[in-house]
Amino acid sequence: MENWDLIIVGAGAAGLTAGIYGVRSGLKTLIIEEKMAGGRAADAPVIENYPGFERISGSELMQKMVAQCRGLGVVINEFENAVALDLKSEEKVVKTNKGIYRTKAVIIASGTSYRELGVPGEKEFRGRGVSYCGVCDGPLFKGKRVMVVGGGNAAVITALYLAELVSEVKIVHRRNAFRAEEALVKALMGKNNIEVLWNTELKEIKGEKLVNKAVLADVQTGEIRELSIDGVFVQVGETPNSQIAKEASVEVDEHGYIKVDVRQRTNIPGVYAAGDVTNHPVKQVGTAVGQGITAALEAYGFIRRPYYYGQ
Amino acid sequence: MENWDLIIVGAGAAGLTAGIYGVRSGLKTLIIEEKMAGGRAADAPVIENYPGFERISGSELMQKMVAQCRGLGVVINEFENAVALDLKSEEKVVKTNKGIYRTKAVIIASGTSYRELGVPGEKEFRGRGVSYCGVCDGPLFKGKRVMVVGGGNAAVITALYLAELVSEVKIVHRRNAFRAEEALVKALMGKNNIEVLWNTELKEIKGEKLVNKAVLADVQTGEIRELSIDGVFVQVGETPNSQIAKEASVEVDEHGYIKVDVRQRTNIPGVYAAGDVTNHPVKQVGTAVGQGITAALEAYGFIRRPYYYGQ
Repeated sequence: MENWDLIIVGAGAAGLTAGIYGVRSGLKTLIIEEKMAGGRAADAPVIENYPGFERISGSELMQKMVAQCRGLGVVINEFENAVALDLKSEEKVVKTNKGIYRTKAVIIASGTSYRELGVPGEKEFRGRGVSYCGVCDGPLFKGKRVMVVGGGNAAVITALYLAELVSEVKIVHRRNAFRAEEALVKALMGKNNIEVLWNTELKEIKGEKLVNKAVLADVQTGEIRELSIDGVFVQVGETPNSQIAKEASVEVDEHGYIKVDVRQRTNIPGVYAAGDVTNHPVKQVGTAVGQGITAALEAYGFIRRPYYYGQ
Repeated sequence: MENWDLIIVGAGAAGLTAGIYGVRSGLKTLIIEEKMAGGRAADAPVIENYPGFERISGSELMQKMVAQCRGLGVVINEFENAVALDLKSEEKVVKTNKGIYRTKAVIIASGTSYRELGVPGEKEFRGRGVSYCGVCDGPLFKGKRVMVVGGGNAAVITALYLAELVSEVKIVHRRNAFRAEEALVKALMGKNNIEVLWNTELKEIKGEKLVNKAVLADVQTGEIRELSIDGVFVQVGETPNSQIAKEASVEVDEHGYIKVDVRQRTNIPGVYAAGDVTNHPVKQVGTAVGQGITAALEAYGFIRRPYYYGQ
């Protein structure tokens, strides 16, 4: 069984930042990441609000963070899935699909997964017209007609990105206003191949081999109509990846987000959480970074007990 | 009297980030900065732990943030000093040495000032051998003997920076261990022109026109000795720039740091604080960024009351 000072679950902005601070504090630090390092931010076509970069693609920004982290000596195990945590004793145990690790402290930075709509056709056509990531799958829809479902920043960013690739984009939103940065909404209004269908819900996704139709309902009148479409990009929020933490008795809120205090502590000593998986109200790269720093410095204090710890 | 949606006091990492998010949310945003935009981080010779940049000088990083902020349309008034806040009414008023501004929300991101030692000679020789910023004044001491007082990250970073310029550096620290990142301490140990005087206090700074001597005391034995020295760099922490906030009834803790909750709210509605001036336990560029984001989005919610505000 390998021994570590600090194990971080998740290599997104929060986890990578915690890694940078952990290793610079002298902690032997391992990050375990289910997919490729980079996290959800790597899926963003463009990021214009991370201080220091006027405009950078999510994947480029996250590659920089990964390189910085590895360059400092953090070990990042990609494509390894943490399946269980034992946090009861002072020495904590992280079990993955590949091994078992002992550690003095754990930071949970496992982020969120794309939330599904739960409508008929969504599961059947996933990967055959239904997508949750514009950057990943947008290029497959060149010259075609796509739909983006949602009304937050992610939906608007996805629509803007797709508008450059596809022939037309319809945004389906069940409210009559976006919950998105005004700068993004303004950019949207300047695109003549994007149309917003307000007060509209997607009820079903239809097709043969591939998606070819969306069934829509007017939220106010209940009226149903069908629209010919080649792709559906679902951008309706996230659900926290907090299952294994919850099973190990880490407290979560009513939506499953891990409860943390201002020092990123959970209810279990030596266990911290940072980034989108927490109940912090803001989910941005910059806030994940701030939380990753705080979590790592707190873990350092917990492990090494320097004279100022607890002050 | 000029009208604004959001006024931010201070153009350091927290204030500039709040500006980026404020203006991108559609708020008419003004930053008032006493000195040059950039804040304390701009004084850092090198920053290696801000995610996205493996190694960058503080001034270069902060110039990027300033440019990004201005590019998005934030107005930054430099060399303007906020002297009083009136936060009692819904419309808040910020009074400076140059004008009076009305605003719907205020973010206090005024940071900290260098803490003084309070020893004889310190005030008299300020600017004549006594300095609080290695990057600002280090080049004046090329080939000379300097002393750094302190034991935290700032002291170690300053010593490392000066070691490249001067002939010898003595670090005077009243404890027997640093409160600094291990990576920094390791780098220090590799320098043969840096000597650490543990358990030692600086008692007095002497000189004629310029500094030429330091009077030191052994903390354990009380023994006093004099050391010939050309410069003294004081790096013993900060005091929060919270005076005008306090005078406007913003709550501060026992050290004068502004009390904030997890959403960066102070005790006064519509008034937020972010960065080093707050009572958040961690003072890093990355944490200031995270707090600036949260404060700006909270101010946006307070001003515009979108349907999801308060959720």
